[in-house]
Amino acid sequence: MTDTLISPAYQQTPDFPGLLARLAGKLPQHCILSRVEDTRAYECDGLSLYRTLPPVVILPENEAQLIAVVTACKVLNIPIVARGAGTGLSGGAMPHAQGIILGLSKLNRILSIDPASASAVVQPGVRNLAISEAAAPFGLYYAPDPSSQIACTIGGNIAENSGGVHCLKYGLTVHNILRARVITIDGEVLELGSEAPDSPGLELLAAFIGSEGMLGFVTEATVRLIPKPACARVVMASFASVESAGHAVANVIGAGIIPAGLEMMDKRAVHMVEPFVNAGYDLEANALLLCESDGTEEEVEHEIQRMEAVFREAGATRLQVSSSEQERLTFWAGRKNAFPAAGRISPDYYCMDGTIPRRHLARVLNAIEEMEDEYGLRCANVFHAGDGNLHPLIMFDSNKPDEVERAEKFGAAILELCVQVGGTITGEHGVGIEKINQMCVQFTRPELDFFSAFKRAFDPYSLLNPEKVVPTLARCAEYGKMHVHGGELRFPDLPRF
Amino acid sequence: MTDTLISPAYQQTPDFPGLLARLAGKLPQHCILSRVEDTRAYECDGLSLYRTLPPVVILPENEAQLIAVVTACKVLNIPIVARGAGTGLSGGAMPHAQGIILGLSKLNRILSIDPASASAVVQPGVRNLAISEAAAPFGLYYAPDPSSQIACTIGGNIAENSGGVHCLKYGLTVHNILRARVITIDGEVLELGSEAPDSPGLELLAAFIGSEGMLGFVTEATVRLIPKPACARVVMASFASVESAGHAVANVIGAGIIPAGLEMMDKRAVHMVEPFVNAGYDLEANALLLCESDGTEEEVEHEIQRMEAVFREAGATRLQVSSSEQERLTFWAGRKNAFPAAGRISPDYYCMDGTIPRRHLARVLNAIEEMEDEYGLRCANVFHAGDGNLHPLIMFDSNKPDEVERAEKFGAAILELCVQVGGTITGEHGVGIEKINQMCVQFTRPELDFFSAFKRAFDPYSLLNPEKVVPTLARCAEYGKMHVHGGELRFPDLPRF
Repeated sequence: MTDTLISPAYQQTPDFPGLLARLAGKLPQHCILSRVEDTRAYECDGLSLYRTLPPVVILPENEAQLIAVVTACKVLNIPIVARGAGTGLSGGAMPHAQGIILGLSKLNRILSIDPASASAVVQPGVRNLAISEAAAPFGLYYAPDPSSQIACTIGGNIAENSGGVHCLKYGLTVHNILRARVITIDGEVLELGSEAPDSPGLELLAAFIGSEGMLGFVTEATVRLIPKPACARVVMASFASVESAGHAVANVIGAGIIPAGLEMMDKRAVHMVEPFVNAGYDLEANALLLCESDGTEEEVEHEIQRMEAVFREAGATRLQVSSSEQERLTFWAGRKNAFPAAGRISPDYYCMDGTIPRRHLARVLNAIEEMEDEYGLRCANVFHAGDGNLHPLIMFDSNKPDEVERAEKFGAAILELCVQVGGTITGEHGVGIEKINQMCVQFTRPELDFFSAFKRAFDPYSLLNPEKVVPTLARCAEYGKMHVHGGELRFPDLPRF
Repeated sequence: MTDTLISPAYQQTPDFPGLLARLAGKLPQHCILSRVEDTRAYECDGLSLYRTLPPVVILPENEAQLIAVVTACKVLNIPIVARGAGTGLSGGAMPHAQGIILGLSKLNRILSIDPASASAVVQPGVRNLAISEAAAPFGLYYAPDPSSQIACTIGGNIAENSGGVHCLKYGLTVHNILRARVITIDGEVLELGSEAPDSPGLELLAAFIGSEGMLGFVTEATVRLIPKPACARVVMASFASVESAGHAVANVIGAGIIPAGLEMMDKRAVHMVEPFVNAGYDLEANALLLCESDGTEEEVEHEIQRMEAVFREAGATRLQVSSSEQERLTFWAGRKNAFPAAGRISPDYYCMDGTIPRRHLARVLNAIEEMEDEYGLRCANVFHAGDGNLHPLIMFDSNKPDEVERAEKFGAAILELCVQVGGTITGEHGVGIEKINQMCVQFTRPELDFFSAFKRAFDPYSLLNPEKVVPTLARCAEYGKMHVHGGELRFPDLPRF
């Protein structure tokens, strides 16, 4: 195995005039932005803590134009950062100072919907929700529903392997993409996956999904559609402690129930959102669960009864079942508006994204509570409990530089705690630039070497979203937390559970 | 992208004495077989058409021994072919004349079963069914159920991404493995995947599953367990034509029903198995469907009613629902014994494995019927209809060399037809050595190049199961059916649908 992790091969002063000259006649002029007033809008994605002004932004209108751009960048050794709607939360689409932004928003056509095979063929710039809207006349929809689904695109969803409230039952993006047409850095076309359940050869489609723009560009994807359930209802359950709520989550799954959604909020999150949305949340509860069932009327009725029984046995102090579609949406409104609610009570907040095995829910929440004292900052917890996917919201004031630093350290400590209990540093937001240091904690040196070798197989020139996701050895050494493999203690500076 | 597909780097006369000398003291003597009477049992896997006597067979008893073997082979440039139970049907474990067989059968311990997280940690040599047996006291089981599940091992299942009758509802192996501990050709340990629903970094676990021994060796896997359903029943439906049965399959899926199993047999298959098993199959039917529902009593009753309604509407000529567990097993017995039944009426048979989009079921079956005349051989069709995974059984007599050749050509034509209608050359049996020529048909040159580049990232020395799965350019050129990409006609010598 090679000794060196990927290091960039591009120049410090790339030949942008040469690039524009090569593209003249191949793309309409309005597809190429290079004036600061035009490119400013692309300086960051949803992680606005990090910003870089892109020298050039190119927005191809078809695959041939995209291939022309990629080919020209390859010849001139210019890095390429792909971008969908820019809603990502880990800086995956943050520009590179020596590269271009390749925006895919104009590749936004739904090419076909086939109810017989329950699938649709779409371009990468199609918005997540637009697929379900187009499939609705056939009684079908596209299941993964990130909370940004009004704006985010399927191309970005593929890059980040996006999840959502319903992914416990219906899977992540990787489980709902059947096929992708991919353009490589050499301008070659690859067809990954197929309509069939399995594909021969190596399973490169799954590896491509979640690869954060490091391997190539999707120009077309076949997505799985599923029948829209006739009925959906939510049980809202209050608990006196996060422990008992944690047990309730484990017991629901242990009973063989797969809820359409299973979300948890701690007391701070409940108190944060209730005045904002008036969802009728129980302010006495120390933890609140929202648990959804969908299917036929009979299935839902039966499953809701089973859910209630499990919650009652786990010590629920209050139970309420949505009695109408309107009430169901109200129950969800609080959970879905947790981020804006945080914005009302704190000048700034930092949304983390880690996963843990479900059985550690309570101990991790207790540890986060202790960290609040250690870092002198408040944290509200909302999360996809069924998946063990945490979204702690750390509240701080960016006008106080000291608080920014403490918020970053607090966030890093949470992620490293997730790894420590056998979880991961990202559930659905990706690594991007935000969590690149924690990759040193999550993975061993040989594992990072393999990521690099795999990336090199697709991108031997290190031009695709360089300096993201996979850290260099130098970075890990500097971060000082290189993972030690083989059963050794992984975090000498963190207590062991 | 590199121009050359993988070509072997090992010697024609490897230093086996040197290998044995290096391993002396590191493995017990009984773990190393080199006498012909001992190694003969390893000369083929379930695809007995192809045989090679392995010079040396090594059966490590623990991970440290396995690493010692791999490291010694790397130093001496000796190819390694991994083997589980040897039940594979595509020659993936066929020995290499210049290499060793690395048998994993002695790594056969179930390390833990955790009902709270519904998972088990097992070594690769554990038999598929043994996992479910061990999990049964907790009301759990391991879902993928290849028909060889009594004998086949989880390591082999991972190598082949095995399926089974129930994978329509419960997924293939790739959907049921949470984590794998992998030893690389450099003797390094990689942890791929995690207990969490998503993992950061590149999704190498999914790419590893189904990689047919080309990337490394699993020494431990965490598998997902699911609750054993309280109840299961089967609807058996007769149809007057494969078209109407094909429509029934599409309509079941289209109605949003996900059967626990959905299998189809054509008339020849029914007539072949009924005298053998007396399952009570309808000998008048031109196509028979078996459709299973599992869940709680109420769920099954409700779903069975919906299935019957769909079948009736699709023109079923006879419907029967299993009224007891015994009857359910009898209904399945015919389907599961199709292969031995073929052995009773024909000296030899060749079981193919391709997939097609479900909507092409009828036209592909009709085309196969026409091929029977063309190749002068009979073919019975049993298949996982819900998945579109065909298992045509071509009957021939290996004492007639001409028939062997025609059977091989018939099989190749079926696989190429699968590709032509948008399907694939393997559903669950892998590529191995059997389908390596059809890889030239399935994939374009750049796609094969990427497979090679990906393999090189794991195996830069080309020592892991060389000359399997990914064909060289020379082989594709010789086969004369190199795939042409970009919307061009893929099979100039086959009619277009």
